[in-house]
Amino acid sequence: MQQKNTLTVLKFGGTSVGSPERIKRIALEITRRSALGEDLVVVVSAMGKSTDLLVQLAHDITPTPCKKEMDLLLSTGEQVSIALLSMAIKDLGFSSVALTGAQAGIKTDALHSKARIEEIDTSRILKHLSKKHIVVVAGFQGISAEGDITTLGRGGSDTTAVSLAAILKCPVEIFTDVDGVYTTDPRVYAKAKKLKEISYDEMLELASLGASIMETRAIEIGHKYSVPMTIALNTFDVEGTIVKELDDTMEKKVVTGMTLTDNCLMVSIAMIPYTSKNVSQLFATIAKEHIIVDMISQTAPYNNTVNLSFTTYKEDRLALEEILRAFKQEHNSIDYYLDDQLVKLSVVGIGMVSQSGVASRLFSLLSDHDIKFYQVTTSEISISYTIHSSDKMKAIQTIADDFEL
Amino acid sequence: MQQKNTLTVLKFGGTSVGSPERIKRIALEITRRSALGEDLVVVVSAMGKSTDLLVQLAHDITPTPCKKEMDLLLSTGEQVSIALLSMAIKDLGFSSVALTGAQAGIKTDALHSKARIEEIDTSRILKHLSKKHIVVVAGFQGISAEGDITTLGRGGSDTTAVSLAAILKCPVEIFTDVDGVYTTDPRVYAKAKKLKEISYDEMLELASLGASIMETRAIEIGHKYSVPMTIALNTFDVEGTIVKELDDTMEKKVVTGMTLTDNCLMVSIAMIPYTSKNVSQLFATIAKEHIIVDMISQTAPYNNTVNLSFTTYKEDRLALEEILRAFKQEHNSIDYYLDDQLVKLSVVGIGMVSQSGVASRLFSLLSDHDIKFYQVTTSEISISYTIHSSDKMKAIQTIADDFEL
Repeated sequence: MQQKNTLTVLKFGGTSVGSPERIKRIALEITRRSALGEDLVVVVSAMGKSTDLLVQLAHDITPTPCKKEMDLLLSTGEQVSIALLSMAIKDLGFSSVALTGAQAGIKTDALHSKARIEEIDTSRILKHLSKKHIVVVAGFQGISAEGDITTLGRGGSDTTAVSLAAILKCPVEIFTDVDGVYTTDPRVYAKAKKLKEISYDEMLELASLGASIMETRAIEIGHKYSVPMTIALNTFDVEGTIVKELDDTMEKKVVTGMTLTDNCLMVSIAMIPYTSKNVSQLFATIAKEHIIVDMISQTAPYNNTVNLSFTTYKEDRLALEEILRAFKQEHNSIDYYLDDQLVKLSVVGIGMVSQSGVASRLFSLLSDHDIKFYQVTTSEISISYTIHSSDKMKAIQTIADDFEL
Repeated sequence: MQQKNTLTVLKFGGTSVGSPERIKRIALEITRRSALGEDLVVVVSAMGKSTDLLVQLAHDITPTPCKKEMDLLLSTGEQVSIALLSMAIKDLGFSSVALTGAQAGIKTDALHSKARIEEIDTSRILKHLSKKHIVVVAGFQGISAEGDITTLGRGGSDTTAVSLAAILKCPVEIFTDVDGVYTTDPRVYAKAKKLKEISYDEMLELASLGASIMETRAIEIGHKYSVPMTIALNTFDVEGTIVKELDDTMEKKVVTGMTLTDNCLMVSIAMIPYTSKNVSQLFATIAKEHIIVDMISQTAPYNNTVNLSFTTYKEDRLALEEILRAFKQEHNSIDYYLDDQLVKLSVVGIGMVSQSGVASRLFSLLSDHDIKFYQVTTSEISISYTIHSSDKMKAIQTIADDFEL
């Protein structure tokens, strides 16, 4: 009886393909698995710091490079990786093919630098799989209907890998330089514990709250199409964390994890004349500039004005200041300030849904330890604070000890 | 009355786009000409040493990288250049579009690393020209019918530029780091003179004989389609050399120029059993390995054996040695040796066709000055010698002085 081969999508990030030696190392692992009969689609990012070098080149030309040309430029990074990895695989005596995003059939909209995958034409990938080729695909990139090369933005290679797994109906393994998902960042808090399993929802909260293991978009796609995802170390020697649908076998802790975001810019606007139109127009303008807004909190109106805070990434500061200046011209009464000396601290746990008292326990902990918090937001399974950067370590220690993370 | 815009293809080599500053410099010149109403298609090579770096990366993976992956890897070099140049043009307020070889419709055969252009679908270029965009095209690369990225080999960007000019029925200007075609290499012989005009035939001889200004394939295409070509300095401040059909206005010198090829490997085979089949089979094997053979000389048979010499490029040494070993196994009698301590010296002049005595004048010159020559070949308008590297400077001086080059 002929055994049907299993198909898996593997994804390797920039560190994993950071040097010829590392590329040869992962080629060895890929061919080992191929020799065991697995069909493999391998998605790779650009080598280590190569994207930074390309960005620098562009900025040496102009401070405001056109996004379309920027995509064309940056996409060369993954093209180099796929060529080298495919060479390394062939050098080990295996059949392999290297495909750019366009060649792999990844069709996106034309929103350069932040494109979204609209459709994947898998015919070329399937043709090569049927010929027993290891298929190496450039992450992070696609092609628009106009035939222009696009990039998927932040975490784009994860998005490529999970989207391919979704359409090929197979699991995906994300190899990275951490060996799994931890209760909190082990580089910051040495006693952090590795999770064996985590639900999509918790993973999404952890990721969107700043755990830099996987980008939220990729997790969302994984969740939507129920793609089994494993996050594991790129040295292949330890078991990683499985991300899957929540089931009864999962341990139900009140708090699963805690994340910290350093790259955090808090915007506070006071005395906005109270009409909901004003606030929605502000966010519409921000969205039009493709600035990603993270935490939003608005307090109830008082004296016919409302106060509003939100956080975003520091690199959007210039664009935001321009928007706020225009907003102030329209509404003379408002007062705004930006603060980038803050970090965002988030605590996540599926148990929060059913157990009350987590928020009050956190508030007490922070106040007992003299940790000032500024903005506060909550979701069903998380609570987030902005705190002063200097309080970061104290907050982590305090919360991790108390919730046994 | 509306004036019809003239269309010109400009080509910039690796040195011309070697740094962001140089790219900005040529963007300035391109937009200056565009502002004067010219329609422009600009073909660029990879930045300076970037191709060498990519080759090094590949060789860090494997000593024998697959050619298909190599093409995918190397083609990123020009992709970076077109993205940066298009950014620089847009930064000066002009409309521009950057196209890879594939996007520009350059369709080739599947002979990776030495592909030939089979067809150019100019629809996308023409669409952008009609919208008054400056069209920036990646040289050196194309796409095969299978959808794989190919490269055109040695001098490929010149081939791209001249082929585009041929199909677009317009002139091409090749910008380089020399300011025109000289009677001999001015870096080697300071008193060399710049030519104002040269015929395709002479240019072809000079190029195929080692003048590294333009690759022969590009000149051949230019000749075939009568593309007016100008070779000029990439600083845009001096007049270059025009390559065109021979006409009566051209000065008829016996000898137009002299070239030297350093990268020269001479193969000599003695005592080949005399049947023309033996020699033709040898060259068939060499051609199958895509080794380019340059000078060939065979002496008339003697004692039923023939002696044969030919030159090729040093990088093909390993492949050649393998072929020769096999050839020796088949024909035990033969004796062969390879010599790479030689340079090839060639003297070119359309006047040679009609004026006799040039060869004998050269032979005398060399012997009078004690310059040993090994292989000798002639064409209608050229004569070539291999001489010892140590005699190089003496030979140049002697011939240039005598023929007033």
